Amino acid sequence: MTAPTTSAARLFSFIGSDAGAWRVERMHCVVGEPMPAVRALTVVAGEVPTSAAGASWRLRGITSNERYVERAEKTALVGKQEGLGRQASTCAALIPIRKNAAWWALTQDERRRVFEAQSRHIAIGLQYLPAVARRLHHCRDLGADEPFDFLTWFEYAPSDSASFDQLLEALRTSPEWAYVDRESDIRLASEWVPSPGSSPC
Amino acid sequence: MTAPTTSAARLFSFIGSDAGAWRVERMHCVVGEPMPAVRALTVVAGEVPTSAAGASWRLRGITSNERYVERAEKTALVGKQEGLGRQASTCAALIPIRKNAAWWALTQDERRRVFEAQSRHIAIGLQYLPAVARRLHHCRDLGADEPFDFLTWFEYAPSDSASFDQLLEALRTSPEWAYVDRESDIRLASEWVPSPGSSPC
Repeated sequence: MTAPTTSAARLFSFIGSDAGAWRVERMHCVVGEPMPAVRALTVVAGEVPTSAAGASWRLRGITSNERYVERAEKTALVGKQEGLGRQASTCAALIPIRKNAAWWALTQDERRRVFEAQSRHIAIGLQYLPAVARRLHHCRDLGADEPFDFLTWFEYAPSDSASFDQLLEALRTSPEWAYVDRESDIRLASEWVPSPGSSPC
Repeated sequence: MTAPTTSAARLFSFIGSDAGAWRVERMHCVVGEPMPAVRALTVVAGEVPTSAAGASWRLRGITSNERYVERAEKTALVGKQEGLGRQASTCAALIPIRKNAAWWALTQDERRRVFEAQSRHIAIGLQYLPAVARRLHHCRDLGADEPFDFLTWFEYAPSDSASFDQLLEALRTSPEWAYVDRESDIRLASEWVPSPGSSPC
């Protein structure tokens, strides 16, 4: 099955290998089992075989409907956010996370309460718009054996690297993160030749 | 990939063919493209190839976390419901549905409002417990090309057939169903030899 490579594509594959469009600047295991180290990452719309040439690993995720965002929040997000692929966004991050069984056993009202009333997940993200562009991919319901529940892809300019670190710090110290039992943080730079004096990611 | 055939299995395959554990009593297309007619259905825990011997079609779905149910509703449901596989439940139904793009563009609060405040989906289902046992499978996020969004499997005794029809009628006339753009209704009987005078499904 191959998803169309149009704006309507929902399924994306993230391929860790020796060479690709994004150079790995650093990989950090936040909690749980680490991902094997790779030197580069490629993002592809659609399905890619696990045995793709040169791939060390492949993660898949699918964009889906909102699970927590309410209309007023959506309006605020849409009013501030910008899309992926901005020319100045030469830094990116892929952050795969898995939540534990206790999270998934919560009912919808309980998860929403932890996510926003206690952790202000949406409000925190809103503070970093439009600097940090983001696409959330769901994995949990792709199959019974997915290694992560979510893959979030972020893009930002080198000058916003410190802000991006603050965003992650705010989320990781929130009550919601007590439910995260596996997380990796993969920082990337586009394979673009920097001008003298430009900042690294 | 094969999911374990234990109580922890989340992925299920529904195989329409000429012979199987459940005999098709009737198939009815409620809205949208019809499913090809088959004589029997088999339910398997885990993944089955689309080319499985004798299969006319195969649908897949995965059990997942609650999307709308709140804690008080969950407590009421768990207190009344019974599991699948009851000896007297010789009738079953598989009801695949797909919702339209307008549904999926709603935010969480908007979908909850249609689902329960306007349509009383949970309250209606509760009225038919424990007679009608049920397992909901999600398909929308299994991949980019799934033909349905949900597969619901129901089991009940022949004497509850009329109640089951009432349950479906109440849901299908609710505001939520304005968002359903494909639905089939497949009624099944277990391949069990009825005693004289027993009711059909």
